[in-house]
Amino acid sequence: MSFLALIEAKRDGRALSPAQIGAIVSDYTAGHIPDYQMAAFLMAVFFRGLNSEETAALTLAMRDSGETLSWPTNDPRPVVDKHSTGGVGDKVSLPLAPLLACLGFRVPMISGRGLGITGGTLDKLDSIPGFQTLLPTERIQAVVQQVGCVMCGQTDRMVPADKGLYALRDVTGTVPSIPLIVASILSKKLAEQLQALILDVKFGAAAFMPTLEQARELALAMVRLGCSCGVNTRALLTAMDHPLGGAAGNWLEVKESVRCLEGRGPAPVRELVIECAAHLLVQTGKCGSLAAAREQAIACLESGNPRRKWNEMLAAQGADLEAFERKLALDVTVPAVVEIHAPVTGFVSRCDARQIGEVVRDLGGGRLTKDSVINYEVGVDQLAGVGTAVAAGALIARVHAANDTQARRAALRVQSAIDITPSPPAPSPLIREILVADQPAREAQ
Amino acid sequence: MSFLALIEAKRDGRALSPAQIGAIVSDYTAGHIPDYQMAAFLMAVFFRGLNSEETAALTLAMRDSGETLSWPTNDPRPVVDKHSTGGVGDKVSLPLAPLLACLGFRVPMISGRGLGITGGTLDKLDSIPGFQTLLPTERIQAVVQQVGCVMCGQTDRMVPADKGLYALRDVTGTVPSIPLIVASILSKKLAEQLQALILDVKFGAAAFMPTLEQARELALAMVRLGCSCGVNTRALLTAMDHPLGGAAGNWLEVKESVRCLEGRGPAPVRELVIECAAHLLVQTGKCGSLAAAREQAIACLESGNPRRKWNEMLAAQGADLEAFERKLALDVTVPAVVEIHAPVTGFVSRCDARQIGEVVRDLGGGRLTKDSVINYEVGVDQLAGVGTAVAAGALIARVHAANDTQARRAALRVQSAIDITPSPPAPSPLIREILVADQPAREAQ
Repeated sequence: MSFLALIEAKRDGRALSPAQIGAIVSDYTAGHIPDYQMAAFLMAVFFRGLNSEETAALTLAMRDSGETLSWPTNDPRPVVDKHSTGGVGDKVSLPLAPLLACLGFRVPMISGRGLGITGGTLDKLDSIPGFQTLLPTERIQAVVQQVGCVMCGQTDRMVPADKGLYALRDVTGTVPSIPLIVASILSKKLAEQLQALILDVKFGAAAFMPTLEQARELALAMVRLGCSCGVNTRALLTAMDHPLGGAAGNWLEVKESVRCLEGRGPAPVRELVIECAAHLLVQTGKCGSLAAAREQAIACLESGNPRRKWNEMLAAQGADLEAFERKLALDVTVPAVVEIHAPVTGFVSRCDARQIGEVVRDLGGGRLTKDSVINYEVGVDQLAGVGTAVAAGALIARVHAANDTQARRAALRVQSAIDITPSPPAPSPLIREILVADQPAREAQ
Repeated sequence: MSFLALIEAKRDGRALSPAQIGAIVSDYTAGHIPDYQMAAFLMAVFFRGLNSEETAALTLAMRDSGETLSWPTNDPRPVVDKHSTGGVGDKVSLPLAPLLACLGFRVPMISGRGLGITGGTLDKLDSIPGFQTLLPTERIQAVVQQVGCVMCGQTDRMVPADKGLYALRDVTGTVPSIPLIVASILSKKLAEQLQALILDVKFGAAAFMPTLEQARELALAMVRLGCSCGVNTRALLTAMDHPLGGAAGNWLEVKESVRCLEGRGPAPVRELVIECAAHLLVQTGKCGSLAAAREQAIACLESGNPRRKWNEMLAAQGADLEAFERKLALDVTVPAVVEIHAPVTGFVSRCDARQIGEVVRDLGGGRLTKDSVINYEVGVDQLAGVGTAVAAGALIARVHAANDTQARRAALRVQSAIDITPSPPAPSPLIREILVADQPAREAQ
């Protein structure tokens, strides 16, 4: 059957067989299908969708389009990972990886870069002196086996089909398609050869999915797809209306992550790190209940082992630990800092994550386009969390910038992103729902 | 606004402005829009459609993407044309052009080639010794001014946007979209700078549109679009279940066309030629009523002037008239002819146009792909019309082939395409409806 016939079949709402989907992916990756035909096919998929069998076939074919990681079978430590749909100040992956390694997991955390207001794990790690985020496959596997965790980028030989398809979707208006989104995300995770995966699907003004309903639809599709591909997959639905934690900006988020590993720092970051770890403990059968799993994760974090594991991972990935610790000791690494103070006494009732994200991006901390060069040091920190009681004149945020003009301009925008009101805002849980395969969505406890 | 934003707008069901549509066409023709983005846009149009304003803007932009014909303004003869959606044995254009020239029209009949079971006017004309179907613009205009009619192919510089878009649609599953179809057809006709246009939209087993309803939808879209672009446009809805006339195959159809110009040959061909001419007489105000117009067209055909005009057109386009008349006198121009006789006495109740078209194509008379080489001499003639009473043993068809084996094989297929039954079939009019702008469809009289 020609690819044109498959385009027409999908255009007319017919389902394709797993073999047909597999042939499309391998032919496209081999350069036998021109971009203009694939673009028409992707737009037909946008309108007609893919059923769960088609989506699984697409995901597996994309996974198998390149190299996958492999693990010694005699190692009892489960291979797990976490994926977030992205937000402002979301540094959960950084403390989570060493915590999971200390809990007896292997964590090949292959991450991406940021775009727009969404930060990227690799960009954050690039702010660490000497740290290498691009490792060859053998080294990725060796670091995981030896340290228990690695945080790095995809190699050139992993999921090439996704790279090609994503670049094409990006310029043809075919990104916002649930089956294409979930296949893209999960093909990369499946190439890690995981046993369990925890997803953090965000909703809200600064999230990819603005509403809880849309986030639930995406999360459900990913949980079902992951499980149908043999990976125990769960999803947390978490709010992304205000930044996660008190820092946004690459280096400032690394600092906050280290504070989390030291048992300090903002409660929401810690809460999400613990929750992700606890679910993975349950998903892999290492713990019988979520309550016990949370206790185990908290105890592990308190032990200080994850903080040492963090340095071990840094060293394994080429970081200059002395330079890192020296940098960590600095309060400021930029030429210009402006403090923002509460104009009145009251409660922080709003801290607009989208506006804060835009400020960080415009300070040079994020990318306007894929080719933007990042300033790792700029950003916002010491953000007072939503619900915090503040006295007039109290510090509610700091702007770190490359110069005074940019710092002052950014400070005005940060100020307008934060509201102080006489009474506290209604409490709003960070983790709203937990999605477990083949169970109805349930409220987070 | 970037083209990506326009793809997204169309994908999401928003209408584009005429200026945006115009920019898409000119940017694409200039090579500034890559095929993969245009393919995604075309598929979005397949699903979302184009409103009448968008379709008119697309049509006019395509017309204006290249050279258009121009006519002396002091010449009172209206410039008109006819377009058919294609069928088997449809040779109406050939006798119609010289008839219209004799009725005081100018007829720049720019035609296409056949594909599959659908014959192409240019292929038929190519069977005439010496006849040139590719003329430069100046010569097209000069022949029309001098002779009154020309039958030729598009020049390279006419409607380049349509050529590019059609080639892309053909390989991306975006051909069957009413607004794209009508814009493609009418942009080419509008480039002739017409005053009036008669459309022959066919329905039935061997037509582009299988049902009367689909044909009506297409015809209505074309009539409205033509009128909104300033061309008085009407459409006939005609049946295409059996071949039109008694011959299918390039040279055999030229012969039948000449017989029509001599007042002979099958009634359905003559009926459609007269009807097209009569409507154009009414559309341009040359006649006050259809009845009077039909009489005028019949009288003109009977006068023999169109037959002489035909030879005048042939001469103007380089044909060797002596060789043509010699060829016309031959009953057979192929090495092998097989006759098919009625097995029983009865009435011809079915003559399957699709099967006959496939036989002619497989004999080498049509194209399987765009690159197929045609044998102009092969085909089927002396087909008994549906409804004809035949005695057992009467001739009901002849196959003209390149060799005996092919002729015998084709004859078996032709025989199976024709049914003879004891009682005559229910009468079924050839011209089923006439569509006039801004009037409800009416039954043909």
